[in-house]
Amino acid sequence: MLTELKREAYEANIALPKHGLINLTFGNASAIDRRKGIFAIKPSGVGYDALSPSDMVLVDLAGKKVEGDLKPSSDAPTHRRLYNGFKKIGGVVHTHSTHATAFAQAGMAIPIFGTTHADYFDGDIPVTRKLTAMEIEDAYELATGAVIIERFLADDLDPLDFPGVLVNRHGPFSWGATVAKAVEAAVALECVAHMAQMTMELAPRLKTIEPELLEKHFGRKHGPGAYYGQK
Amino acid sequence: MLTELKREAYEANIALPKHGLINLTFGNASAIDRRKGIFAIKPSGVGYDALSPSDMVLVDLAGKKVEGDLKPSSDAPTHRRLYNGFKKIGGVVHTHSTHATAFAQAGMAIPIFGTTHADYFDGDIPVTRKLTAMEIEDAYELATGAVIIERFLADDLDPLDFPGVLVNRHGPFSWGATVAKAVEAAVALECVAHMAQMTMELAPRLKTIEPELLEKHFGRKHGPGAYYGQK
Amino acid sequence: MLTELKREAYEANIALPKHGLINLTFGNASAIDRRKGIFAIKPSGVGYDALSPSDMVLVDLAGKKVEGDLKPSSDAPTHRRLYNGFKKIGGVVHTHSTHATAFAQAGMAIPIFGTTHADYFDGDIPVTRKLTAMEIEDAYELATGAVIIERFLADDLDPLDFPGVLVNRHGPFSWGATVAKAVEAAVALECVAHMAQMTMELAPRLKTIEPELLEKHFGRKHGPGAYYGQK
Amino acid sequence: MLTELKREAYEANIALPKHGLINLTFGNASAIDRRKGIFAIKPSGVGYDALSPSDMVLVDLAGKKVEGDLKPSSDAPTHRRLYNGFKKIGGVVHTHSTHATAFAQAGMAIPIFGTTHADYFDGDIPVTRKLTAMEIEDAYELATGAVIIERFLADDLDPLDFPGVLVNRHGPFSWGATVAKAVEAAVALECVAHMAQMTMELAPRLKTIEPELLEKHFGRKHGPGAYYGQK
Repeated sequence: MLTELKREAYEANIALPKHGLINLTFGNASAIDRRKGIFAIKPSGVGYDALSPSDMVLVDLAGKKVEGDLKPSSDAPTHRRLYNGFKKIGGVVHTHSTHATAFAQAGMAIPIFGTTHADYFDGDIPVTRKLTAMEIEDAYELATGAVIIERFLADDLDPLDFPGVLVNRHGPFSWGATVAKAVEAAVALECVAHMAQMTMELAPRLKTIEPELLEKHFGRKHGPGAYYGQK
Repeated sequence: MLTELKREAYEANIALPKHGLINLTFGNASAIDRRKGIFAIKPSGVGYDALSPSDMVLVDLAGKKVEGDLKPSSDAPTHRRLYNGFKKIGGVVHTHSTHATAFAQAGMAIPIFGTTHADYFDGDIPVTRKLTAMEIEDAYELATGAVIIERFLADDLDPLDFPGVLVNRHGPFSWGATVAKAVEAAVALECVAHMAQMTMELAPRLKTIEPELLEKHFGRKHGPGAYYGQK
Repeated sequence: MLTELKREAYEANIALPKHGLINLTFGNASAIDRRKGIFAIKPSGVGYDALSPSDMVLVDLAGKKVEGDLKPSSDAPTHRRLYNGFKKIGGVVHTHSTHATAFAQAGMAIPIFGTTHADYFDGDIPVTRKLTAMEIEDAYELATGAVIIERFLADDLDPLDFPGVLVNRHGPFSWGATVAKAVEAAVALECVAHMAQMTMELAPRLKTIEPELLEKHFGRKHGPGAYYGQK
Repeated sequence: MLTELKREAYEANIALPKHGLINLTFGNASAIDRRKGIFAIKPSGVGYDALSPSDMVLVDLAGKKVEGDLKPSSDAPTHRRLYNGFKKIGGVVHTHSTHATAFAQAGMAIPIFGTTHADYFDGDIPVTRKLTAMEIEDAYELATGAVIIERFLADDLDPLDFPGVLVNRHGPFSWGATVAKAVEAAVALECVAHMAQMTMELAPRLKTIEPELLEKHFGRKHGPGAYYGQK
């Protein structure tokens, strides 16, 4: 069932260590079939070397396991909350990549200092508030998804214009129209986090990018006037 | 004799350079058979490329070589002291991984700033006191194990809740129920050391993680309420 | 047509991720045939794994596509502007390599602190001014090339003595007598950017290299008195 | 002629990029036959991929090329000066490895903060004075060797107790009883440079290692009481 979806989710999962975003089993990726309302996600705590497409676990948008011999990632409720809140996304990726996690731990948004960042995000990469003790206690992983949604609603951010976020004290989540795009956003997010920290060391009081340059670069790749790539 | 134990120790040793934790011959891993009271450890100063499972040296808990053509790692007395002091551990790993060693050299515990850290350690990663001139002179490697035990006794730390430590002026040791778990702890320790230093540069006065989030994340993976992984 | 030129451009493009200068599709290389006034450049947004020599797009110095099924890199007008402005160069490379981009984002030239830098550049690696809103709006990629030329004219810099530049808020461009030399300059540029930042952290008020040492090292490799290499 | 010597020098040269110490052609290694007074060194400016053992150039201690189709490394006079000044060494390595070069550019010795460093060097890794304009002009590469010797004579340092140095504004040179040992010292030097810089960021006013711990660790590996390794 949903063999192609499982293959896509599998490919995204094994791409994460290849891009240097993941050590051990620190991360996971999922892909959703919107018509069926089912997503395929990495099984919990299984090493990337041992993974095969058929290991992907199918879960529906109410959180029920639909197919799979293994337990889904413990972060499955976060993925589910994101799929329910962001209707346009087709895939979700979670990593603990080093530099993005450093910003998340510091509780700081990643300031947008240049065009590498502007090619993927239409502004600073947002950071969520911390979870309350009650949220942590009650339904931790679901609440992790909920504070992300809350953060996006508060500033009316479009999840496809900001394909990632830092969860405070935790690390990055990213997404996209497809799970392959979510992987790409995860790579870009780590890369711009690294560059931003280096930039801040060189120029501690630097202002963020000029609005016209942000608009130009983001617009080259996204939206009706895009002219980057082969379409 | 103890072919499987030697294979486990061998696998752990060669995993260390693969994870980028070791240059040259800066490190070693061992695995113990608790019933026999014998551990298998890397031979001293042999390159990882040249290693085979049968090169592992068998040593008993009194420090006597039981089998092996080669001399055991010069750190064998440290491993032995840890096996004698921490009855629940099944494997020990020692590396000089860059960021963990930086904290060790600075004589600083690694502050717990986020969930990556909380997935593996139930608090700051402790650092030992310095050895005295007499300890260094008398039985240096054994004393290295002894100050680790001393540090854990002083704060009544459970070695499975804190599967690693920084030896002052030296570097990290880690352990676990199995030597494979000890390798995993060594990877996590280096990773959180790197993240912690980056975090401190971004936010020099940051407080450590909230207790409820620590409890949640550590508890997801460890103890009776654990729900991470496939068990 | 121009099969050898396309192969050279292709080799240069795939060398970029091999040297760790590029993530995803963040960069491009081109090579020019000066007699024909045509350059071969990477197609836009195509992954390096999927690339073949025949994918290279041929563009003339007026900006007209001469051959190719795919759209050229969106940065093609920048390459073209550089070929028109710097008559001696035979290849151009653009990356978003981490440390060079950090300096570009900070709007800082890379100070010349040692002989690694002096082997490739005859002084600090220059940084352009920012583009104006109008330049960004009108013909962004062409204007990117124009501010590079402007920067070189302002200080009368020879592009072969300074085979690279940082575009403010953006990242590095490099070039050379051949596209292989442009790749080499891109590697050197990232390397010296990394070293310079580390050096500045160790010695924040350090002066740049003594003129006689710069002259010696640059002269060892370049110009009439060169004695490095096999010629 | 001297086929085995050329093979040793070749192996050492190709080990440098494998250890991540070298980009492009930024470095070289040589090995000497003390009875013949001839050393084998990398040819100048030849890529590591293209190298073969028979490309090694044989040079005598007066600087005369004895055998070889190619020009020797432009740094050959530095190697020669070191062989003439340090009678006990059998091999020399030069790299521009990132962190060691940062210290060299800053004109700072690498402070000895821990046992990783003490395993290889019997104290801080020294840095030379800067060359004078006249030295640079007259016989630059020979003078580079001469300031190293001068630095060691000034403090009566034994080159086997300090198997490496930083040349001011330039980068590291290392050596050993064999060229394989010189490579090992180059790896250790870069590694401890990286650790030292990280340590200084964590603890800017940290004192260097206690003398008794230095003596113990250095003595474990070197000298009459050594017990590390298989001899």
